[in-house]
Amino acid sequence: MPELKFSRRKLLGSAALAGIAPSIATKAMAAHHSKNAKATLKKGGVMVFQGDSITDAGRNKKDPKPNEQKSFGKGYAWMAGSQLLISNPTHKLTLHNRGISGNKVHQLADRWDKDCLELKPDVLSILIGVNDIWHGLNGRYDGTAKTYEDDFHALLERTKKALPKVQLIICEPFVLKCGAVNDKWFPEFDKYRAAAKKMAQAHGAVFVPFQSMFDEAVKYAPPKHWAGDGVHPSPHGASLMAHFLLNSIQVS
Amino acid sequence: MPELKFSRRKLLGSAALAGIAPSIATKAMAAHHSKNAKATLKKGGVMVFQGDSITDAGRNKKDPKPNEQKSFGKGYAWMAGSQLLISNPTHKLTLHNRGISGNKVHQLADRWDKDCLELKPDVLSILIGVNDIWHGLNGRYDGTAKTYEDDFHALLERTKKALPKVQLIICEPFVLKCGAVNDKWFPEFDKYRAAAKKMAQAHGAVFVPFQSMFDEAVKYAPPKHWAGDGVHPSPHGASLMAHFLLNSIQVS
Repeated sequence: MPELKFSRRKLLGSAALAGIAPSIATKAMAAHHSKNAKATLKKGGVMVFQGDSITDAGRNKKDPKPNEQKSFGKGYAWMAGSQLLISNPTHKLTLHNRGISGNKVHQLADRWDKDCLELKPDVLSILIGVNDIWHGLNGRYDGTAKTYEDDFHALLERTKKALPKVQLIICEPFVLKCGAVNDKWFPEFDKYRAAAKKMAQAHGAVFVPFQSMFDEAVKYAPPKHWAGDGVHPSPHGASLMAHFLLNSIQVS
Repeated sequence: MPELKFSRRKLLGSAALAGIAPSIATKAMAAHHSKNAKATLKKGGVMVFQGDSITDAGRNKKDPKPNEQKSFGKGYAWMAGSQLLISNPTHKLTLHNRGISGNKVHQLADRWDKDCLELKPDVLSILIGVNDIWHGLNGRYDGTAKTYEDDFHALLERTKKALPKVQLIICEPFVLKCGAVNDKWFPEFDKYRAAAKKMAQAHGAVFVPFQSMFDEAVKYAPPKHWAGDGVHPSPHGASLMAHFLLNSIQVS
């Protein structure tokens, strides 16, 4: 996958997306499905899912094993991972979940050698950001959107240095407007979304537009159907996420 | 979609599949994903999901509305349907769920005008069969695998006569070996699977190999993870089904 250059045009583009309107989201969704770049998993390929509680989803973290439900939890990562395994039975894929509940970017960095680089993924999917803002809103953290972006940038640079051929998937942080998510989150949260998109563009990653997806989803069922507390997806939210994530991966 | 001819070769082929071995299932799965024929939904397209409780999944059956979660329930039909709607926001699709808990094929036939033909689907997906055997096993029904096949054949003939351009998707009936599903189900159940596959071939339908899919799935998590009672899928089983069903549909 070619690495995209960090250009002023792209930065402006992602800044414009921060205040994304429903009609723009709709167009972004249509474009995502029709001509999205994809990461490729070949025979024997290794993929790592990284993130916070949304990725963790109650997985058994003692002696985690690849391709095993208990080590994967019950969230989008397992739904996507099991579908990859079951749909491609002759490919001998090795899939790992290393999401840990409560993590912010700097906590991924603290455990990155063991929980990412040493696993040598061909494809690495990262969903991180909701705690970076949430723990600030509730007074447990003093990081800002700039801290998030700077920490994320450093993590991705470190990753590409250690694994020059890794294919990156960066998932857009998202919230549903219900449960713990109130007006205090906005417009600050949009800065975190924009930073994730900017990091995807800057580092040649496939971007999965989860917030645009959920902005469409609430046209068909209320926010709490997709995520009861506004942050942690229901099985329906997780299934939708798995579908969109898989739309960004091809198995060859 | 071209209608396939009812040939002796195909009948023998589907009979051989009745006693499907894991390695054959694995090959069938790989083939399904790499070169499966697909039904096509165009802009303004209409799709109907039909079946029994697995399709019904607790939907609100009073005054059912298209594209609405409560009218769709919480099963694979909603997971697949919502993913179609959300992924294709500019296509103005109209999706209906008309599954009813407890139904066998002859009960679909009783309500077919109102609950299928009058909705004029471009794509019609049918998952039926588990009650046709189950109600026989528990003494509530005297139909056999031949009754199932004959009733299904008549229903499909009637459908094609009323809707000559309809694209059919026939889903393989499936069970997981846990809960209510014991040794009494076999090898009789394989006859129902073979009949569904034979009907797909005879009527030019896309066939979705749910049993082969679940035969793969149990390599990664126990049967009860996918369907607690062996018949009704968990959200994880439903998500897997939605993914496989969507693999049989293209939106153009």
